[in-house]
Amino acid sequence: MTLHVVVLGAAAGGGLPQWNCGCSNCNDARTGRLRPRSQSSIAVSSDRQNWVILNASPDLRDQLARTPALHPTGPRQMPLASVVLTNGDIDHVAGLLCLRERQAFALYATSAIHDILSRNPVFDVLDATLVPRVPVAGGVPFAPAPGLSATLIPVPGKVPLYLERGAVETALIGEQTVGVLVEAGGKRLYYIPGCAMMTDDLRARLQGADLVLFDGTLWSDDEMIRAGLGQKTGRRMGHMPISGPDGTLAAFDGIDVGRKVFVHLNNTNPVWRDDGPERAEVEAAGWIVGDDGTEITL
Amino acid sequence: MTLHVVVLGAAAGGGLPQWNCGCSNCNDARTGRLRPRSQSSIAVSSDRQNWVILNASPDLRDQLARTPALHPTGPRQMPLASVVLTNGDIDHVAGLLCLRERQAFALYATSAIHDILSRNPVFDVLDATLVPRVPVAGGVPFAPAPGLSATLIPVPGKVPLYLERGAVETALIGEQTVGVLVEAGGKRLYYIPGCAMMTDDLRARLQGADLVLFDGTLWSDDEMIRAGLGQKTGRRMGHMPISGPDGTLAAFDGIDVGRKVFVHLNNTNPVWRDDGPERAEVEAAGWIVGDDGTEITL
Repeated sequence: MTLHVVVLGAAAGGGLPQWNCGCSNCNDARTGRLRPRSQSSIAVSSDRQNWVILNASPDLRDQLARTPALHPTGPRQMPLASVVLTNGDIDHVAGLLCLRERQAFALYATSAIHDILSRNPVFDVLDATLVPRVPVAGGVPFAPAPGLSATLIPVPGKVPLYLERGAVETALIGEQTVGVLVEAGGKRLYYIPGCAMMTDDLRARLQGADLVLFDGTLWSDDEMIRAGLGQKTGRRMGHMPISGPDGTLAAFDGIDVGRKVFVHLNNTNPVWRDDGPERAEVEAAGWIVGDDGTEITL
Repeated sequence: MTLHVVVLGAAAGGGLPQWNCGCSNCNDARTGRLRPRSQSSIAVSSDRQNWVILNASPDLRDQLARTPALHPTGPRQMPLASVVLTNGDIDHVAGLLCLRERQAFALYATSAIHDILSRNPVFDVLDATLVPRVPVAGGVPFAPAPGLSATLIPVPGKVPLYLERGAVETALIGEQTVGVLVEAGGKRLYYIPGCAMMTDDLRARLQGADLVLFDGTLWSDDEMIRAGLGQKTGRRMGHMPISGPDGTLAAFDGIDVGRKVFVHLNNTNPVWRDDGPERAEVEAAGWIVGDDGTEITL
């Protein structure tokens, strides 16, 4: 029994290019000087026959079309066992609307995320008799596909943007934002595309993992503000930065992990550039910058 | 003053390939033997500076990225004046979720369609202070962009799949399904991506139009059933077929239209094949099979 991972999309919400963004990364992605990247989703399997999609990105139709392992195996047969959601953000739930057309799979998420879906009738396009919505509590293992075990791990985060009202707690630990531990054949991977800060609990859990795919949204906390593209820090958006004393590179110092991959990278992130100093710094710290189509077998 | 049209996506809901479909068209689109097509949307402009998107398809991010006329003109400036919706189907509204990131534009639709959006908080990701939702009554002209006039035209159709309850009236004429008349500099185009049947009223309106982009979902009414891919006829889905005595080719007989283009074509439609007899029949009747990127200037 092995554990296979395919990064379907390595970018954060908006993708690269983001539709309305004229930053140098986005402009270069439109003209082919930088490879375009699609929004945040991975697929995992233990047998390459039954797959689990972790987060349903708005780009999912295209992502599936270019991933042969996830092509139909008959007129209306898909090698898809289930979808698991880590929060209610648009970049992680909008792709559910692509998964219509009377296809059976299970949908796993916390009760809080299922409640968000239930309050939006548009998601009823997934027929409940074919797509059961299974609430899962944090810390309780479940089987998202044959041969796989998964466990939702609450991590610091916030409610989705479209549900923000008044003052927003940006590092809430509960059912709004989770990571996922996936296990097969003694191998352990963590998928954590959104995390507002490192905690002692999370540090202890990650210790000794074979693979961690982690929130790489921004290089620096004020990246969007300095570029004149927004008024929010990364932390206000519920994401810790890669660099700096409180950043992810520093936070992983002393955590023993087999492989570390950044996912959920914002279009403004300088690590997208193969030849930049930020990419060099990330790689020197033992990290891989995730890409659309990155495959890892444990 | 001229009238420019770009077909952003020529396929119906699901696109070509549709994620879970193993029909020969979809399989060929995955392997490159048939060109992939994205979901239903067009853009119109009178000056190439201010564009209107008619229907926001789930593929909109990608569609915009490959349409230079709709690229950002600054760090956060888009040449987009407004979006107009013709119904509440997923293939026409899901793309609104791509249009987030604090971009200003107006959103025009009937009150019935706005009500559907209002009942789904997920669409609140479009900040109402930046994206005003403007209700428009059928038959009343409005200005979706400088130099353009638009009028919603009720056509026979049904409520979106995700709102179907019990017996469904499939050729309702009201606010659920509309076509759009767009006018500039004396030129008239009709965009009607969904139409359950031809009526005398519609026939009279189309008479003398410079361009009609019309519902080409299915070639034959029982196409999905015969292919073993579904249990519904085209009419049950709210679409008249192209062929047959009650089909679109026959219905347009005697209507004098400058150019006729099929859009909203289902993945199963045999007219996607350049060399097939159905394509030849359609073209002999004076129709163009719309494609992603088709541009027409009137």
